Amino acid sequence: MNRIALCALVLAGAARADEGMWTFDNFPAKKVAAKYKFAPDAAWLEEARLATVRLAGGCSGSFVSPDGLVMTNHHCAHSCIEQLSTKEKDFVAQGFYAPRADDEVKCPEIELNQLIQIADVTSQVQGATRGLKPGKEFNDRRKAAMAGIEKECSAGNDKLRCNVVELYHGGQYSLYKYKRFQDVRLVFAPEFAIAFFGGDPDNFNFPRYDLDVSFIRAYEDGRPAHTEHFFKWSPSGAKDGDLTFVTGSPGRTDRALTMRQLQDDRDVVLPDRLAELAQWRGALTVFTQESPEHDRIAEGDLFFVENNVKRYTGYFESLTTPTLWDKLADRERTLRARVAGRSSLRKKYASAWDDVARAVDAFRAHRKEFSYVELNGDARPPSAFNSPLISLARMLVRGTDELQKPNEQRLKEFSDSRLPELKQKLFSRAPIYPEFEQFRLAYMLTKMREQLGADHPVVKKVFGKRSPQEIAHELVKSRLYDVKVREQLWQGGRDAVQASDDPAIEFERLIDPDARAIRKWHDDEIEPLETSGAERIAAARFEIEGKSSYPDATFTPRISYGAVRGWEENGRRVEPFTNFSGAFDRATGRDPFKLPESWIAANQNHQVEPATPFDFVTDNDIIGGNSGSPVFDKSRQVVGLIFDGNIHSLGGDYGFDETVNRAVAVDSAALVEALDHIYGARRVVAELKGSGAAAAATGQ
Amino acid sequence: MNRIALCALVLAGAARADEGMWTFDNFPAKKVAAKYKFAPDAAWLEEARLATVRLAGGCSGSFVSPDGLVMTNHHCAHSCIEQLSTKEKDFVAQGFYAPRADDEVKCPEIELNQLIQIADVTSQVQGATRGLKPGKEFNDRRKAAMAGIEKECSAGNDKLRCNVVELYHGGQYSLYKYKRFQDVRLVFAPEFAIAFFGGDPDNFNFPRYDLDVSFIRAYEDGRPAHTEHFFKWSPSGAKDGDLTFVTGSPGRTDRALTMRQLQDDRDVVLPDRLAELAQWRGALTVFTQESPEHDRIAEGDLFFVENNVKRYTGYFESLTTPTLWDKLADRERTLRARVAGRSSLRKKYASAWDDVARAVDAFRAHRKEFSYVELNGDARPPSAFNSPLISLARMLVRGTDELQKPNEQRLKEFSDSRLPELKQKLFSRAPIYPEFEQFRLAYMLTKMREQLGADHPVVKKVFGKRSPQEIAHELVKSRLYDVKVREQLWQGGRDAVQASDDPAIEFERLIDPDARAIRKWHDDEIEPLETSGAERIAAARFEIEGKSSYPDATFTPRISYGAVRGWEENGRRVEPFTNFSGAFDRATGRDPFKLPESWIAANQNHQVEPATPFDFVTDNDIIGGNSGSPVFDKSRQVVGLIFDGNIHSLGGDYGFDETVNRAVAVDSAALVEALDHIYGARRVVAELKGSGAAAAATGQ
Repeated sequence: MNRIALCALVLAGAARADEGMWTFDNFPAKKVAAKYKFAPDAAWLEEARLATVRLAGGCSGSFVSPDGLVMTNHHCAHSCIEQLSTKEKDFVAQGFYAPRADDEVKCPEIELNQLIQIADVTSQVQGATRGLKPGKEFNDRRKAAMAGIEKECSAGNDKLRCNVVELYHGGQYSLYKYKRFQDVRLVFAPEFAIAFFGGDPDNFNFPRYDLDVSFIRAYEDGRPAHTEHFFKWSPSGAKDGDLTFVTGSPGRTDRALTMRQLQDDRDVVLPDRLAELAQWRGALTVFTQESPEHDRIAEGDLFFVENNVKRYTGYFESLTTPTLWDKLADRERTLRARVAGRSSLRKKYASAWDDVARAVDAFRAHRKEFSYVELNGDARPPSAFNSPLISLARMLVRGTDELQKPNEQRLKEFSDSRLPELKQKLFSRAPIYPEFEQFRLAYMLTKMREQLGADHPVVKKVFGKRSPQEIAHELVKSRLYDVKVREQLWQGGRDAVQASDDPAIEFERLIDPDARAIRKWHDDEIEPLETSGAERIAAARFEIEGKSSYPDATFTPRISYGAVRGWEENGRRVEPFTNFSGAFDRATGRDPFKLPESWIAANQNHQVEPATPFDFVTDNDIIGGNSGSPVFDKSRQVVGLIFDGNIHSLGGDYGFDETVNRAVAVDSAALVEALDHIYGARRVVAELKGSGAAAAATGQ
Repeated sequence: MNRIALCALVLAGAARADEGMWTFDNFPAKKVAAKYKFAPDAAWLEEARLATVRLAGGCSGSFVSPDGLVMTNHHCAHSCIEQLSTKEKDFVAQGFYAPRADDEVKCPEIELNQLIQIADVTSQVQGATRGLKPGKEFNDRRKAAMAGIEKECSAGNDKLRCNVVELYHGGQYSLYKYKRFQDVRLVFAPEFAIAFFGGDPDNFNFPRYDLDVSFIRAYEDGRPAHTEHFFKWSPSGAKDGDLTFVTGSPGRTDRALTMRQLQDDRDVVLPDRLAELAQWRGALTVFTQESPEHDRIAEGDLFFVENNVKRYTGYFESLTTPTLWDKLADRERTLRARVAGRSSLRKKYASAWDDVARAVDAFRAHRKEFSYVELNGDARPPSAFNSPLISLARMLVRGTDELQKPNEQRLKEFSDSRLPELKQKLFSRAPIYPEFEQFRLAYMLTKMREQLGADHPVVKKVFGKRSPQEIAHELVKSRLYDVKVREQLWQGGRDAVQASDDPAIEFERLIDPDARAIRKWHDDEIEPLETSGAERIAAARFEIEGKSSYPDATFTPRISYGAVRGWEENGRRVEPFTNFSGAFDRATGRDPFKLPESWIAANQNHQVEPATPFDFVTDNDIIGGNSGSPVFDKSRQVVGLIFDGNIHSLGGDYGFDETVNRAVAVDSAALVEALDHIYGARRVVAELKGSGAAAAATGQ
């Protein structure tokens, strides 16, 4: 009786909350209509989808003109801005503006993806493994089925990216077909000091005063892309309580994890990751303080690390909050009881939780090895201190080897559909700094020896009698800094790479057998058990609850609805808007509260309106990856630009708490006011307001 | 039925295990006799107690000659060795040996305490608060009672240190009367490279190959102290399975914490502390790498931090081990059930667990504020990055103010019995390096602002519009580096300190009201609730189980028994001994596996016996604070020197696991072999072997 009453309450709560990162093909229009008296139709949703882009590196953006102009965050283009900078000209510090179309400069690594088609391929993928138990064969067949579908979709066309997307943890598979833009150029970026005003102290907090924006442009065949689907600019902006939509690609949520997995996150994974990030943060901070040059070459990495420290701290704190923990535990208990209570469900699903638990336990014993031997060549966290040099060497060593195999037998990051992404990284012109690599590699190797122990076979093999500094010193003599060298090795293929005496290549060749061994164990023994467990739990939930909810975020395009809305904190009300004058009040003249000269001058000369709304919060359900997402109204007019969440939004990884979880956005009025009256970026303003398309197209 | 069977098993296990850090007045001689056929008598125990010393800074040691020669660890004398070093002469790197008595040099901060008397004062202390509820009055009265007993005991004699020691969490109070040696001089220390061979990677591990020893000497009236109670040297050392005793002052265990407290440690305190230490570790590592001078002035701090990282990692891992957690939870459940089951117990004790839980919850909300505003001037962790400069300023500002009050109304660290310790710190000649202080203070202030938030009143007060670097830059202009300045201020008293324009003093005056406010809240609201809760839980345990066990460690002298014994790990046997040849095998020539020249030369010239036992393990129950403890046999002859525990010993904070928890010691044979054949330290060898007392006494 109590249980039923409780469930009714939870469901009622869920109905009230603006929760959900919905796929474009399953948007709860009726729910929105019931609450906000507005129901988007299919055409509206399609327009919103096509006007939204994903930055392949991990952000979101939107077309805001018919000429390929894309609005995203400064921090999403940060590495480009850094890469274009030189010792002489630091665009991070000074900002960037291309007054003419000709002045727009190519970003070495930014790729944009526009989702042009969604198709349900659940039956094909699930059919390929029907009747199989989780294990190597199950895994291989599913991988083969997915690779086949992707290959057929892109049909060798490099301008398309086709991904089979796993949703609801295997409850549904969708084929997402994207148009790919790889020629992307920088148009405008303000100074870092205003993009990230308040720095790390204010990060994930509110009130905020940040102009975290950059404008970039998609090109095709050397000309601005013609983009007929784009968001227009709102003349009036948003007000407190207004309905708001956010589109973009939330990176990852973990709202369907089992309690055993959550316990592993709470007790092992997150504390360990936080300690690793903290140590690297400390080291990197001092490194950047050693000289302006160190600061220039490493502050992007430091930014990334500090962001992750806050992020994982938020995750950890949400898991040690008894209310959330108890709620999630209760949800699992309820589902398991229902499964156990019906014999048809019990047979199919009851063992799923145990499978997941077995996978977690088995992996734990080799977690560090997997992290230091296999992940270190990769860019995934927690290896925040990864070396670009070693990553390149691994792409070459492994890539040329994997390409000998048929598509469906390769490691997934080397499948045909992923090759354009791989090549973009491999042939990126982004500079790599030997001095920073030396520092990073020595650090990484020291940590590897500490964590695996001096007696670990891989450590012995890598170290011999050398110190981390000596090994790093050898590695930085690599010739892979030069894109041409990488191109030659890639074209020379497996034989050329195997014959190379480049020290970074030699290093990768040395550890690759060990790295592959543990990767294989993970992919054959651990992953299938976890995947099939999650799939069956999701399936059980479908059978019982129906497909009335949204899937976990998977860095694929989604849409969320909500409203401009402050919140209560410790009995104090947090208002939803800040304005320019608040920023001038907060400025201390000292980093990270130092306003750029341009702002101080504009204020002194009364060029800007102090009452201009600056940043605001909404209760749209977002997560990392939504950075750069547009906030728009029911007419699909831009009213803001997502750049952060408040501290409570971090727990959104595991569950959404509508009372306190808030998205933080730059107000559209702030963007236009700053572009126009602080930066004199007339060309961009005209284009946003719809009067400047011609200028952009003909400017060259 | 099951519960009873389980309890019987647990008790049987406890009887078998060599568990316990026993007080000298409650040693389980019968238990030892039953297992090892040897029962120490009262005279034996008294001799052992009087031959044991405590290093007031946090270590243990033992008299090993009648002329005040004390054996302890290198890492216990590390700060002295560092303080005596200069740019020109680095005794940390090169080692130290005083060939003549005249060459022995005073350590600025080492104080030795010899426990000369123990008295039970339980009835006096408990009587002072009888009938009172926990709260300010309870607290004040207890403090007053304790201060009164201590004052009467020392009777103004600076050479005595009297402490009322709380045991069994208030179940028992004992008066410990120590003889204090404040003139302590360095006699011998090997090179850091062999004292800490294997460095951080090998720390808390085994096999080990470390000569972590230093010899210091107690002086009285400018002459070597005459110490009639001392440990003689064993001619034969220990063998596998031999009965071993360890005396010393284990710092702290938490074996009686409630589950609510353990949960707070697991979910909040330890993860936070680990992340803080990790970040400071990263920063400090890079700082020490910047120049040999930075390395010299900061590597002691780095060592301390790395040691704590491992320590707290071990704590955290033990709390996330379900077996230990479940065992502790079960123990609490059993005790609470027994209390609830008898009305006489229920009335007195049932609310104790709730009181503790309330204290934990209340403190959590202000934990960071307490840590950054109150603890930062102190040397307690987690403030591992504390500034000596600010600590001195606080001693002056607070000390001169507190001394205006009657003894029993002062903060406890300023009570009369603690004044000698305070003065030793305040007037220490240990150098303070402005460059390191600048680095440390800027770091600490940045962290304070990050953790408390830019809008916190104390942060606003401290920062104004200044950056952490600017504030630090002002602070390091302080004149407190100079002992004379400190002496003048102390003698000038409150008025002089209040009038001072020294920037460090001004800083302390600025934050002291806020720091005192939160300290007062803690001391009045939190501490009494926790203390009385723990006291009542301990009392309940006494009533039910009797005083058959040992109290938690409290950095007071204890004795443990055990045996030389390896262990099983992942099905592999770890043998209890290493030898010299193992060290030569492990050496790579690169830090931290680089042997000093002296060892390499001695090996090449066949001056040393490679089969000499080097380090060994026993199952004596020890914990941090036991560093420097002697290991001796039933004839009270030294067979080893404790310097570490294995990784499993870290969980010993919360409980003792006899299957894997091991103490790590240097073998007595290694000590003599190295002193004699590597360092030519004849004078020390003669003194240890009992033939050199005269030489030491007359050498000057």
